[in-house]
Amino acid sequence: MANYPLRMIPLGGLGEIGKNMMVFEYGRNIMIVDAGVKFPENDMLGIDLVIPDFTYLVNNRDLIRGIVITHGHEDHIGGLPFLLRQVNVPIYAPRLARALIEHKLREHGLLNQVTIVTVNAGETIPLGPFQVEMISTSHSIPDAFGLAIRCPVGLIIHTSDFKFDYTPVHGQGVDFGRFAALGAEGVLALLSDSTGSERPGFTPSESIVEDAFDHIFRDAPGRIIVTTFASLLSRVQQVVNVAHKYGRKVTFTGYSMRNNTEIARELGYLKVPDDMIFELRRNHQLEDNQQVIVSTGSQGQPEAALSRMAEGRHRDIEIKAGDTVILSSHPIPGNEEEVGRVINNLIQRGAEVIYPPLESVHVSGHASQGEQRLLLSLVKPRYFVPIHGEPRMLHSHRKTAVQMGFPTEKVFILNNGDAVKFDKGDVAQVERNYTPAAAVLVDGSGVGDIGPAVLREREILADHGFVVAIVPWDKSKGGPRGGVELSSRGFVYLRQSNDLLKNAVEMLEKELNHSRSLSKRDAEEIIKNQLERFLYEQTKRRPMIVPVVVE
Amino acid sequence: MANYPLRMIPLGGLGEIGKNMMVFEYGRNIMIVDAGVKFPENDMLGIDLVIPDFTYLVNNRDLIRGIVITHGHEDHIGGLPFLLRQVNVPIYAPRLARALIEHKLREHGLLNQVTIVTVNAGETIPLGPFQVEMISTSHSIPDAFGLAIRCPVGLIIHTSDFKFDYTPVHGQGVDFGRFAALGAEGVLALLSDSTGSERPGFTPSESIVEDAFDHIFRDAPGRIIVTTFASLLSRVQQVVNVAHKYGRKVTFTGYSMRNNTEIARELGYLKVPDDMIFELRRNHQLEDNQQVIVSTGSQGQPEAALSRMAEGRHRDIEIKAGDTVILSSHPIPGNEEEVGRVINNLIQRGAEVIYPPLESVHVSGHASQGEQRLLLSLVKPRYFVPIHGEPRMLHSHRKTAVQMGFPTEKVFILNNGDAVKFDKGDVAQVERNYTPAAAVLVDGSGVGDIGPAVLREREILADHGFVVAIVPWDKSKGGPRGGVELSSRGFVYLRQSNDLLKNAVEMLEKELNHSRSLSKRDAEEIIKNQLERFLYEQTKRRPMIVPVVVE
Repeated sequence: MANYPLRMIPLGGLGEIGKNMMVFEYGRNIMIVDAGVKFPENDMLGIDLVIPDFTYLVNNRDLIRGIVITHGHEDHIGGLPFLLRQVNVPIYAPRLARALIEHKLREHGLLNQVTIVTVNAGETIPLGPFQVEMISTSHSIPDAFGLAIRCPVGLIIHTSDFKFDYTPVHGQGVDFGRFAALGAEGVLALLSDSTGSERPGFTPSESIVEDAFDHIFRDAPGRIIVTTFASLLSRVQQVVNVAHKYGRKVTFTGYSMRNNTEIARELGYLKVPDDMIFELRRNHQLEDNQQVIVSTGSQGQPEAALSRMAEGRHRDIEIKAGDTVILSSHPIPGNEEEVGRVINNLIQRGAEVIYPPLESVHVSGHASQGEQRLLLSLVKPRYFVPIHGEPRMLHSHRKTAVQMGFPTEKVFILNNGDAVKFDKGDVAQVERNYTPAAAVLVDGSGVGDIGPAVLREREILADHGFVVAIVPWDKSKGGPRGGVELSSRGFVYLRQSNDLLKNAVEMLEKELNHSRSLSKRDAEEIIKNQLERFLYEQTKRRPMIVPVVVE
Repeated sequence: MANYPLRMIPLGGLGEIGKNMMVFEYGRNIMIVDAGVKFPENDMLGIDLVIPDFTYLVNNRDLIRGIVITHGHEDHIGGLPFLLRQVNVPIYAPRLARALIEHKLREHGLLNQVTIVTVNAGETIPLGPFQVEMISTSHSIPDAFGLAIRCPVGLIIHTSDFKFDYTPVHGQGVDFGRFAALGAEGVLALLSDSTGSERPGFTPSESIVEDAFDHIFRDAPGRIIVTTFASLLSRVQQVVNVAHKYGRKVTFTGYSMRNNTEIARELGYLKVPDDMIFELRRNHQLEDNQQVIVSTGSQGQPEAALSRMAEGRHRDIEIKAGDTVILSSHPIPGNEEEVGRVINNLIQRGAEVIYPPLESVHVSGHASQGEQRLLLSLVKPRYFVPIHGEPRMLHSHRKTAVQMGFPTEKVFILNNGDAVKFDKGDVAQVERNYTPAAAVLVDGSGVGDIGPAVLREREILADHGFVVAIVPWDKSKGGPRGGVELSSRGFVYLRQSNDLLKNAVEMLEKELNHSRSLSKRDAEEIIKNQLERFLYEQTKRRPMIVPVVVE
């Protein structure tokens, strides 16, 4: 085989580097790790999802040997329908991720045209010049794998999202021996999860949450409502275990919770005896202290089940004194306010609400600095590429490595779209902006058709609303053919603002009649400037002005 | 004096109870504590500020004996201009708060019509039947007072915002002896700060931050940029102290930082030798390692100085490798995403960025559970009213009291607008919804003219934008007089959506020509429904539709 360089290119929407997708390129061969989505930031108004820019992959579609999925979280599989519509390549996925992907592709009407292969821990998949070995790790979803990627240039380890859990709730846990063996063999580069790199010490085991649940369940006088991420199946299993211990039955509510628990039960990842399950609509047939309700809404999403309960809008559940609500989750940055509001509303309806850090009802699924050090020590890579995290986290991960004596110049911090290139003989360099990597915004059925200009308009409309000024126009005269009419939305409460609008109309009519032989364009300009100025003087607000001159 | 009940009524915009304002009423006498603003929540689109509903005060203006200000923070003084425009009563304020209030009233053109009296620790102000004693406490601004309020019904203690700082940077600190003496005398009710009630243990002293600064300043190779709240003058003083130790000069940037430090220097609350100050525009005259820049922007506000530096939009400062930026603050809930973005941007420009919890560069200004327990033990009130906090915090504060053996039925958790009423002989009850307490929204120069309907319109516009459909109308025929025109903002990128809009116009023209003798109103209805349906089918988006039928 010819002597090509190996390139590794993180792609992704924004913020986090290489979390949603990593591209590996050797000669005329491309191998992709994950295809996820990112949820939009608060100021991306109206946007539903953010996906990686697939331009490079679409342009090189014939070179792609396959997509390897590390685990079944949305930020690792959610982009598949968008990618597969443009590039049809086989998917290699762990068993649970496969079931979640199939469900997703069925919803998008893509299932029949795609090849999916199940891969197990310890297996190696040949993808052209790449040999990809799946290594068992632990994370907040079962069946999470790290990858050992061999190619003629060397051996790469890609951890994907991981933590070191010595007492995992699901699965075999971390294959420490394999990481050590690979380290002994000689690892060219380690790509490792940086999400928890600002946190000192070790991330506690998922198992500790069961103790907290036990303590709470033991004393709860009435119903227990638990919310967590729908994909956090080990958490759901622990809720079920403790419910069983205290003779309670369980039910699942919210679309993704029902869907994920159903898939997980079918595959055996979630063990709930049939007779432990009750239907939410029949909850009146059970005593309050026999019920556990597992619900979506841990991020305060306004339409999730828990938010509807908190605001008295849930069909089957009215929160009351005696209810205990457990938020078994942390707010993702940007969601703190919404989550806080849900907590306040539940408390005001009389519920006892339990959330971290008040009790240990949540632990992270990501490695802290302690585990990051241990991994570096096991793997002993020649180069280190922190991935999966915002720039601040990648830099913190670098600091941890450098404090251990790792040479700074052998740590590469990339942006999405950069490539790090390895040639034989340990020659490495970063190629900045190797591929386009803008955030591609998904809004409704539109993919990439919303750009900064539309977002800027939405921002103005969000802050100040708009005013339409309608002027019937006499083209021959170059002046208005009748009175000006104003219509507004999101600007002022119209009934209280009669005078304001009447005065604005008078002002505009005076301005327009003042000049003669105006072009339609001139008239639009005058309306825009004069109305903007007038309304700002009167209200100190700047609504968007839309002149409509009708000939 | 006749035998009236005492009522205490928290007022405020939303979320926090009684933080912005507490009203005390005895017979035909009202005394007000604080008049602050709240900053809007993220979903209050375009709103600048939220103030308490002053209806009750305006209706009873003749009964008001005065406003007592506990300290100079915006959430305690920011509502004064709005209140004083409607109700002119004397203000009693600590010295620093007075200067900040005067500055504020000058900006609003209200200074000359208002009486302000300076009050000192230990002084007692007679306000009709109320005797209000100022007790020295500590908080994150100098001159912060708790209040002992005597009236014929009994003695009330109102802590306002406080912490127990045994080594305060400013002032005499907490007057523990006075709290104990009042406790011995017999306290009817304690109103106490709940902000930190979810935090176990004790809040560390403000002084510990100086050690962290020392450690960072010692090693910083270039410029040091520190951001914090502009009112956190003890923090600024510590920055100045450490700058002095390491031979650096300081400058202040950002409107509120310049303004507050100027006022504080004049009054002697901030001690900076003149020759230690340099002008930002002349920073090229100093070596990088001789500079400390104290800046606004600790909450990631887009137009604050630090955000402009982070995005390369600051006139005088370009961030570069060697710069050390210290965020000496915590994000207020709702601001996490913006603060995170500032950190990422600064790091990507090469700065070393230091923020809590990575280093101890910030401590809270509010008591934790340990101090709350100590205060309850000193004051030994007969009733306890947790205030200053969201419902979750008030409930947590109650738990702390109940765990100490305080009887649950003697803790009152109020909402804004509720009254707690005390009669002689220890008879207490809560009167729910005693006064109106809606959030009054300030937008531009409008106060209270934006309600839920306008906010709902802004939400739709923010998410989907709008489409105006203009139809010249022939009234006699009851049909269109010409072609339909569409104009949109915040919906789609128009150049890419020619076909979509052309097809929409065709569809509308067909619909309108299909029927005859339509009223203008019917036509508007058809346009709205048909266009909404068509655009949703085509784009899965729901822009606001504005039909403009021009006769």
